[in-house]
Amino acid sequence: MPGLKHTTFAIAGLLFAASLAGMVFTHCDRPTAEVPLTELQQQALTFARPLPPDAFEEGMDRSEALIELGKMLFFEPRLSKSGLISCNTCHNMATFGVDQLPVSVGHGWQKGPRNAPTVLNAALHTSQFWDGREPDVESQALMPILDPLEMAATEEHVLAVLWSMPEYVDHFREAFPEEEEPLLYANVGVAIGAFERTLITPTRFDDYLRGDAGALTEYEKRGLHAFIEAGCHSCHGGPALGGRAFSMFVTPAERASGQKDPGRFDITGNELDRHAFKVPSLLNINETHPYLHDGSLWGLGETVDVVAREMLGSELSPEQNAEILAFLAALTGEIPAHALKLPVLPSSTEQTPRPVFD
Amino acid sequence: MPGLKHTTFAIAGLLFAASLAGMVFTHCDRPTAEVPLTELQQQALTFARPLPPDAFEEGMDRSEALIELGKMLFFEPRLSKSGLISCNTCHNMATFGVDQLPVSVGHGWQKGPRNAPTVLNAALHTSQFWDGREPDVESQALMPILDPLEMAATEEHVLAVLWSMPEYVDHFREAFPEEEEPLLYANVGVAIGAFERTLITPTRFDDYLRGDAGALTEYEKRGLHAFIEAGCHSCHGGPALGGRAFSMFVTPAERASGQKDPGRFDITGNELDRHAFKVPSLLNINETHPYLHDGSLWGLGETVDVVAREMLGSELSPEQNAEILAFLAALTGEIPAHALKLPVLPSSTEQTPRPVFD
Repeated sequence: MPGLKHTTFAIAGLLFAASLAGMVFTHCDRPTAEVPLTELQQQALTFARPLPPDAFEEGMDRSEALIELGKMLFFEPRLSKSGLISCNTCHNMATFGVDQLPVSVGHGWQKGPRNAPTVLNAALHTSQFWDGREPDVESQALMPILDPLEMAATEEHVLAVLWSMPEYVDHFREAFPEEEEPLLYANVGVAIGAFERTLITPTRFDDYLRGDAGALTEYEKRGLHAFIEAGCHSCHGGPALGGRAFSMFVTPAERASGQKDPGRFDITGNELDRHAFKVPSLLNINETHPYLHDGSLWGLGETVDVVAREMLGSELSPEQNAEILAFLAALTGEIPAHALKLPVLPSSTEQTPRPVFD
Repeated sequence: MPGLKHTTFAIAGLLFAASLAGMVFTHCDRPTAEVPLTELQQQALTFARPLPPDAFEEGMDRSEALIELGKMLFFEPRLSKSGLISCNTCHNMATFGVDQLPVSVGHGWQKGPRNAPTVLNAALHTSQFWDGREPDVESQALMPILDPLEMAATEEHVLAVLWSMPEYVDHFREAFPEEEEPLLYANVGVAIGAFERTLITPTRFDDYLRGDAGALTEYEKRGLHAFIEAGCHSCHGGPALGGRAFSMFVTPAERASGQKDPGRFDITGNELDRHAFKVPSLLNINETHPYLHDGSLWGLGETVDVVAREMLGSELSPEQNAEILAFLAALTGEIPAHALKLPVLPSSTEQTPRPVFD
């Protein structure tokens, strides 16, 4: 794999896949296939994994009450200082969990520094944010609420908002039945995280990995083959086809301007992490434009060419590019129905803090 | 009704109610009551009317395809110049069709001049906007898209966005099957308007008006009685309890600052319309704070007192105020399920205009 510039490399996928190649997954939701896997299916299983039904880990609370509270908080603009911005503003469920902007716009119409990644399947990533600075969706969810460029709130504001509405107080008690006083800022993250752990978007590629060789068209299979042959799979593996490793990446726009994002270096202080970013997931990639950490590329075809050149040192032929795009298009999944059902939010009271626009 | 300062007065409700008082509505969706109406029910029917199932007028198209297209456009941020602001930004379905802000925030974080009214039941109003400058929801819906303070787009931008996505082109063809080329700016309004005509939120008060005297609690009935006795019903009549007449209204905040909104005068140039505003609907009023055309009052109790003083020259007792609030709380209705189900929006293409933040 010439030109590969990983600073960290997730090999868990390869390890587990080695034990699975040639087998059919047993936890699948369709009858276990009797037919042996094709060679391409076996190849795919060396780096890819069918999506789990959700991203809860062993022992995690996954109650309906917790998930529903998390959804309310996800759609709750009153958590922000202005009362206008919710998680859903930048991670719009109607557009596959993104805002389709190069960088997001927050409090006071300020622009953020990086492109907003989708919340769909994000809980499957091994760390959160482009620079991996948070370990999970629970801790990630708390950050944009407090970021002065985004929702610009304080913990005190958030707690005052939630305490002001008896309905929220009740929801927290139902969602955290074993806690004496569950209305805590950290639990806002726990609830939003639980909601995010349900945002899994299965595709035909999952059926393919589970043994149904006809789940992809012949052209999509040629795309999968081209994807592997080009070496894309060496970074884009696991159930989300990404989200598990960091790679050094300078975008063409950064190269042109000379303004290069330090990336993970700002978190670790390690020179090897300079310009390193989390490898993005490829699920729903057709819908989550614009691309790259600076949102500087709008076309997926161009993006595939740029990434192949930068990461693999390869020039793709137009045919390879088109085939890979066909495979990527097959990765657009179903957004879970409950995530598309807007909650009706509790009524403000006289105690609810008033919006502040600055 | 001393102190009444109407510039225009909708009497249609009174005329039709005269013919109905003492009768039970025959187009109701529950078995026609056999029991005679109570005196209070008869009084209520002199000014109020049960909500119709929708706000379509005779001969209007109400196809599923048209309504669904309208919903997509209502939630579509790419209609705006920034790609960030949709109708739902200020008329958030999760918060009863309002943004719960004194005035809305639009393109470039600019503030609008007036409080955003709810879209729920708005199609029942006899005109649109606080100053009534548009006749219906179809023409209203087109205005914020082009307003430089709101979505800041142009007709050309909107059409370029819609033409760039084949899925939208198909949806327009399905929604307007008899038009040769239906993808026109005016039809954006027709579709959003059709969606808005479905946004009717029935309450227990409708059941009460249809003959079920037990649909309101005794205290709510005392509230209804206090509401009528104070004279509130003289302006707040019809199925939406408002939205049918204009009244001169200067808010306490305007009086204090001396900055009085000219209101409908700016539309008609008629001195009698100076500071005149459309009487707001009282449906879901508990949820659509802050109140008045400048969004300057947060408490509904205070608002009821102010309006009684300004419009009726009355000082309400604390008991009257509390009773009226109990009646108003009974006017919170059900948001239709389809309006809470987010559409999954079509994918942008290379031709889709890029967001511009200015």
